[in-house]
Amino acid sequence: MKELEQKVLKDGKVLPGGVLKVDSFLNHQIDPQILMAMANELKRLYDGYGINKVMTVEASGIAIAVFAAYVFNCRAVFAKKSKTSNISDDVYSAEVRSFTHGNTNTVVCSKEYLCKGDKVLIVDDFLAHGEALRGLISICEQAGAEVVGCGIAIEKVFQGGGNELREKGIRVESLCKIASMSDTSLEIC
Amino acid sequence: MKELEQKVLKDGKVLPGGVLKVDSFLNHQIDPQILMAMANELKRLYDGYGINKVMTVEASGIAIAVFAAYVFNCRAVFAKKSKTSNISDDVYSAEVRSFTHGNTNTVVCSKEYLCKGDKVLIVDDFLAHGEALRGLISICEQAGAEVVGCGIAIEKVFQGGGNELREKGIRVESLCKIASMSDTSLEIC
Repeated sequence: MKELEQKVLKDGKVLPGGVLKVDSFLNHQIDPQILMAMANELKRLYDGYGINKVMTVEASGIAIAVFAAYVFNCRAVFAKKSKTSNISDDVYSAEVRSFTHGNTNTVVCSKEYLCKGDKVLIVDDFLAHGEALRGLISICEQAGAEVVGCGIAIEKVFQGGGNELREKGIRVESLCKIASMSDTSLEIC
Repeated sequence: MKELEQKVLKDGKVLPGGVLKVDSFLNHQIDPQILMAMANELKRLYDGYGINKVMTVEASGIAIAVFAAYVFNCRAVFAKKSKTSNISDDVYSAEVRSFTHGNTNTVVCSKEYLCKGDKVLIVDDFLAHGEALRGLISICEQAGAEVVGCGIAIEKVFQGGGNELREKGIRVESLCKIASMSDTSLEIC
């Protein structure tokens, strides 16, 4: 998606250690117009598949998820980071490792809001190693819901998570794909 | 706002200890159509005041904030919960006590995204004791930004936070006001 690629090139900040900051429009400050444009692009890519639920994990996926749910005219569900390791019977859960923060979170989703037969679009702001997506896919499997595909704002292709999922037969569409990053610059696929 | 009041009466669950769960459309599962309707109602209430920024605190305020920013055609900024108590020079910060979770978070906002002269609408899903709003108002004051007012989905009027702020001259508009809650039921103002 050209508009997002240009925004990433113009406003993204590459920090040492392979961190790409897009705080000015996607993570801390939000530009709702580009998010709605991204949601419309996901609608174009996934139109006709009967998607009836958009799923993400809090917090940074929420903004994209709610716009996507708006254009698909369905509900969004966000898996929550659990504060306890005591998981109750009324939720599905998965472990999600964060390479950025160096920790592991348990994420949970109420059984009430994800059902057998749901056709799910999983969305997130970033795709790097694919840990968050794998956790959300696992939750969908537990529920008997079908993952139609994933819709990602920015994929760091060089970190491999996206292609691992594609090799397993999961459809992953990323609106901006980053081929490589050095300490000072990035290259878009 | 009648539509939201009816939704709260129909789908809200009152739990012991004064907790109102609206997980089915506002907090865990999101109904984007009602959120857009709420954003349009905030636009009607605050039209003509030159609002150029919508502000909230992560995570549950994000969904409302991004829809509101969409209809006001401006940026949304969400204050982040800080993982460290080492606050850097490039952020504004405030302490926010949570009565629900019984803890205190430091929330931060980058100085880049909130400026002197900004006209800010602060939004959130719930208003009870008003701690989150006070934190966000403090951050706006630190930035020299003007708080035009607050827009809340559900105000628990009986917990007093909203009226305390109104007495200090802050405009607070709540789309659904709850007069009282017992262990099994609630009454709307």
